[in-house]
Amino acid sequence: MESRQFVRFLLLFLGIVTLLVITWINLPYAPSNATEIFDCNSFSSWCTSKNRFQPKKIINPLKQLTKSTRHFASHTPQHPLDPLTIQEINHVRTILSSHPLFKFSSPYAFHSVSLEEPDKPLVLNWKRGDSLLPRKASVIARVNNKSYVLTVDLSTEQVTLHSRVPLSGYPTMTVEDMTSSTWAPLANATFNRTILERGVDLKDLACLPISLGWFGKAEENRRLIKVQCYSMKDTANFYMRPIEGLTVLLDMDTKQVVEISDKGRTIPIPKADNTDYRFSAQELHKQMNLINPISIEQPKGPSFVIEDEHMVKWANWEFHLKPDARAGVIVSRARVKDPNTGEVRNVMYKGFSSELFVPYMDPTDAWYFKTYMDAGEYGFGLQSMPLDPLNDCPRNAYYMDGVFAAADGTPYVRSNMVCVFERYAGDIGWRHSESPITGMEIREVRPKVTLVVRMAASVANYDYIVDWEFQTDGLIRIKVGLSGILMVKGTPYENMNQVGEQENLFGTLLSENVIGVIHDHYITFYLDMDIDDSDNSFVKVNIQRQDTAPGKSPRASYLKAKRNVAKTEKDAQIKLKLYDPAEFHVINPTKKTRVGNPVGYKVVPGGTAASLLDLEDPPQKRGAFTNNQIWVTPYNRSEEWAGGLFVYQSQGEDTLAVWSDRDRPIENKDIVVWYTLGFHHVPCQEDFPIMPTVSSSFDLKPVNFFESNPILRIPPNLEKDLPVCKPTASS
Amino acid sequence: MESRQFVRFLLLFLGIVTLLVITWINLPYAPSNATEIFDCNSFSSWCTSKNRFQPKKIINPLKQLTKSTRHFASHTPQHPLDPLTIQEINHVRTILSSHPLFKFSSPYAFHSVSLEEPDKPLVLNWKRGDSLLPRKASVIARVNNKSYVLTVDLSTEQVTLHSRVPLSGYPTMTVEDMTSSTWAPLANATFNRTILERGVDLKDLACLPISLGWFGKAEENRRLIKVQCYSMKDTANFYMRPIEGLTVLLDMDTKQVVEISDKGRTIPIPKADNTDYRFSAQELHKQMNLINPISIEQPKGPSFVIEDEHMVKWANWEFHLKPDARAGVIVSRARVKDPNTGEVRNVMYKGFSSELFVPYMDPTDAWYFKTYMDAGEYGFGLQSMPLDPLNDCPRNAYYMDGVFAAADGTPYVRSNMVCVFERYAGDIGWRHSESPITGMEIREVRPKVTLVVRMAASVANYDYIVDWEFQTDGLIRIKVGLSGILMVKGTPYENMNQVGEQENLFGTLLSENVIGVIHDHYITFYLDMDIDDSDNSFVKVNIQRQDTAPGKSPRASYLKAKRNVAKTEKDAQIKLKLYDPAEFHVINPTKKTRVGNPVGYKVVPGGTAASLLDLEDPPQKRGAFTNNQIWVTPYNRSEEWAGGLFVYQSQGEDTLAVWSDRDRPIENKDIVVWYTLGFHHVPCQEDFPIMPTVSSSFDLKPVNFFESNPILRIPPNLEKDLPVCKPTASS
Repeated sequence: MESRQFVRFLLLFLGIVTLLVITWINLPYAPSNATEIFDCNSFSSWCTSKNRFQPKKIINPLKQLTKSTRHFASHTPQHPLDPLTIQEINHVRTILSSHPLFKFSSPYAFHSVSLEEPDKPLVLNWKRGDSLLPRKASVIARVNNKSYVLTVDLSTEQVTLHSRVPLSGYPTMTVEDMTSSTWAPLANATFNRTILERGVDLKDLACLPISLGWFGKAEENRRLIKVQCYSMKDTANFYMRPIEGLTVLLDMDTKQVVEISDKGRTIPIPKADNTDYRFSAQELHKQMNLINPISIEQPKGPSFVIEDEHMVKWANWEFHLKPDARAGVIVSRARVKDPNTGEVRNVMYKGFSSELFVPYMDPTDAWYFKTYMDAGEYGFGLQSMPLDPLNDCPRNAYYMDGVFAAADGTPYVRSNMVCVFERYAGDIGWRHSESPITGMEIREVRPKVTLVVRMAASVANYDYIVDWEFQTDGLIRIKVGLSGILMVKGTPYENMNQVGEQENLFGTLLSENVIGVIHDHYITFYLDMDIDDSDNSFVKVNIQRQDTAPGKSPRASYLKAKRNVAKTEKDAQIKLKLYDPAEFHVINPTKKTRVGNPVGYKVVPGGTAASLLDLEDPPQKRGAFTNNQIWVTPYNRSEEWAGGLFVYQSQGEDTLAVWSDRDRPIENKDIVVWYTLGFHHVPCQEDFPIMPTVSSSFDLKPVNFFESNPILRIPPNLEKDLPVCKPTASS
Repeated sequence: MESRQFVRFLLLFLGIVTLLVITWINLPYAPSNATEIFDCNSFSSWCTSKNRFQPKKIINPLKQLTKSTRHFASHTPQHPLDPLTIQEINHVRTILSSHPLFKFSSPYAFHSVSLEEPDKPLVLNWKRGDSLLPRKASVIARVNNKSYVLTVDLSTEQVTLHSRVPLSGYPTMTVEDMTSSTWAPLANATFNRTILERGVDLKDLACLPISLGWFGKAEENRRLIKVQCYSMKDTANFYMRPIEGLTVLLDMDTKQVVEISDKGRTIPIPKADNTDYRFSAQELHKQMNLINPISIEQPKGPSFVIEDEHMVKWANWEFHLKPDARAGVIVSRARVKDPNTGEVRNVMYKGFSSELFVPYMDPTDAWYFKTYMDAGEYGFGLQSMPLDPLNDCPRNAYYMDGVFAAADGTPYVRSNMVCVFERYAGDIGWRHSESPITGMEIREVRPKVTLVVRMAASVANYDYIVDWEFQTDGLIRIKVGLSGILMVKGTPYENMNQVGEQENLFGTLLSENVIGVIHDHYITFYLDMDIDDSDNSFVKVNIQRQDTAPGKSPRASYLKAKRNVAKTEKDAQIKLKLYDPAEFHVINPTKKTRVGNPVGYKVVPGGTAASLLDLEDPPQKRGAFTNNQIWVTPYNRSEEWAGGLFVYQSQGEDTLAVWSDRDRPIENKDIVVWYTLGFHHVPCQEDFPIMPTVSSSFDLKPVNFFESNPILRIPPNLEKDLPVCKPTASS
């Protein structure tokens, strides 16, 4: 080493030492000895939390039995679409444990263990009372850091390893991946020191595992995650106290810290004041009692039954309902009774929320990668927590549990994950009064009662409430409500008067030092419509202005409905336009009503938002299923997940957009309709510290499906049928 | 007379006689003597209907007293905005009867007698307990076929005749105009003969008065109406049995038939089968009982009070509510309590449905003119019938009556015209569960309970259900539901296989010989927003894509919210675009939140439709208020009716579009926002014979109006507060 180089090295070394000493002296909390910094357990309640995901504690079916009257231990599937039972998941685990892939390898983890549904024609032909179709499990596993897709036949115990695995991306994280990622940084001294430097006690630390998308080489060939942290001192709502600008890049497989980025040293952690939303945390004198007790009451009980645990039968509807780790809930075999013929007619073979896309609108270091795909990355069902009786669903609700597999393959029960209830909201099914003009004494009104299936996924901060609402008039409304807590950004600003005219906050100043960052939400639904039969066509009914010929009419213009049958997929890539309106019909081209209209259902878009990102922007390539609001593809059992089977770090080569661009024929075929609900969310102060629910919905609505109004013959409400109620003695 | 002319005359005369004889012989129903044909009373139940509008029967307040516990006879106004009472309307009539204009003239008719609201600053300064502001009536009358606008001061008995009367158009029809028009054609022998020729007994005839719009000279300088008729044989739903193509043009003032057009002789009258929708008309074995009894119950009673008959106070809201003959209902002085300060803050000074526009999309002779403007032509309130308890509104509803004036000025009561009820639909106000990621044991959920104000107008066939829904989080949802009966067209076709590929039906074949004609519905709301104070600004918050500079971020693009304050009216003429999204804020530019955001409310558009007609088409000129979805005008007390004060036969020179094009300044002014809800309606068979309700809504939503979530501190539901219910003994 030359002397010059040595001097440089010495100066650098002394500089580093000086910096370290200064840092050390200025530590707001100086631990008594250095090793303790690294001992997560002694300092962070976060990594020792008793309530952490611990499937082993709840998987013992016998133990479960004492807690639950729904006999999971003895439950056997009754319907070909019934989800895997506890016994079946245990069986899968046993079979695989002796399979060479797992027997001789470690580590391994199961990322998904779910029913491999039998082929559609088999299910369509199956009738209650028939013997059950062969049961198979579809398993997605990581073994020695490689992803595998397998089929396990539960009767033959045969295991099939599928060779066609997506080119890029990784399976949905396991809950163990997510939780362990949040405490892994605590094993890193630099990280801990940084936290202390920010004035946060390790015991007050809360961290979140943030999927990082894909932006190029840096996110390839390695399963990564970014971790960001919060202070939970003095509040349960740690989300409002970000340690801004601090991002830990972690190898998800090794749990090694790859990189720590800290660009937020000058940004204070927002105060805890007014952030806690729990009722117990409100000062007594500030609690507000605005409303007298109110409830939906059914004196003679509900009008629905749930047959064999999963088949819901209500009014003129029946459908199969199951919780799903990735989709949340899956509604299958939705059929409605025709009042004219008594026939129970097919409407939808399968429907579920296929993928979400939630891009945040801040291109800076700690935010640009926040472009969540909640179903494929986190598991929309995995994140669906038990519903709160009387508050999440009304008193008259029935609850359904989910059964999922932990990373080691052991089954566990997510209780009360889905609720089913009848809803009467004071709405009107149909009505007519004769007006004063005719003076006829007619006033015929029918109340509207519907059946709602609900789940609520809490993907960390955000809560998504998904409702499937069935109406007696044949309409299905699919509604998504957003509540929960904003993902916020720390800022030095305490008031907008400190912010320059040209400065971009990327959101709204919600409270002192807190910015609610602008973001979008897209939820794409898979809707395998089978109108009376599987082969259907998609018809765009364009509503177009026609000009009258001069002198032919006092009118200059009128609107005409022009039917355009989509021949191939590209004909059915639809961007909604207010000034180029259309109806979107799924029809059975071989079946007509008495007067000759093709029977059908239409997709009725609700208030929606479109993604405006650059189509070549990496997040938009991965979320390309939001490039249109409606798509139609030919049924293909491998095309269920709009963002691809392996969404995590995917590069967008397995999305709905890619499939649809193959432009396959869709006329008079078994087709799947995809609809995307969208929200632009510019936060406002009312969203702080927890957001009032915002909802949006779309409808599947019969259009010449019935010969006439299917609820013509339902009776009105009569006083004598309504209950007699009194307050409870205790109140 | 020259001999050649005489021969011509003779031939013509003989020809007419021959035609008359042939017609006579071919009459399907030959009355015993000729005079009976012209005697409406003996042949048509229509013109003798006992339930026809007969205000004299119900105006006697003493008689009313025996029927109602709401003491109309003794009711006195308590609030400056309270509607005119029975006594006041009688007083107006007495005052005017001695006024020279009415004393020495006849005929005359009152088309509107309503409160002339005091000037806004006076109302804003008025407090309960203050003496009532001087009461005035605004009267629109027709005297000797001229329209007058008058103000009657009820304290001084002074009458002011306003000289500024709209250039074109006529006042809203009186109910007497409408009803008398329906039987007037029966005095015409040709008409009666035509009806008989169509195979309809006069006793089965039902006719409707159809506003004819304006298309040029033919509809000027004369008050006209078109009458079309139906057979009510074997069904109460005569709307489904049109005598197609027959249109009687009537002079509304003289009741003279001006012209009879009959271009539908070859079109059969559709059969009555399956058209009756009344429950009593359904065969017993076909009645469907799908649902067990269900109701919304409040064991401790409602949470609202209605003070002084019109001031509704519920939860954190209060507002003044009144029925109105033209608008239906008017909501005024809507104010919400701030949970932080306890202050009751102004939100909206006045809101109501200002006008409707319902163009049908058929340019042929019997249909082109059907371009209804239901509020200004028919009176949206006048057509609002008593609501059906338990079916139009839930059991826990309170009902409010309307008091209107008949054509002769006598007051009458429209009972149960508006209902107010609390609604619990099983929805969620806000929620958060901690996810399995954090494992924290948190599950906080608050149910959503709202207050609904409802009316239902039956404008002949169609039923419009209008809901104003108030939420505790500060949101107001305005929802319009469409039900009732389609306006249909007769056709020779019985099946679509008879219809040529190129043929235009102008709608959908709904049943044999019945076409549901395509049409639009637009409902334009007047929203005088006063955010904390009257002077507000309108801000368009454009959500725009920003591209990042190369190398600055892994992201190529993101969205930014850009605030653009509207300076003048044209800045606020807004057409909604999915791919050019924006939020629409009404802010108080002089008032900011603690962290410096201007306080505001935003208009959140719901699923909507835009009018696509040619802007120069006469109906679109009259309905030009639908040219944009949002408009903002400076407050002007004469600009309340979006289609003009005198809409009937108007030429469109007094519309919102004309006012807005004056491009007045609107920044930091008292401003009025106008929002139009739209529906394209392509009928389908499910709409036959009566339509399941279709709804659309928009929201007024606080945006940085509150410092934080205003319902943070409300409690969850607890089992102990809910009622104990049992079926009634009788059921």
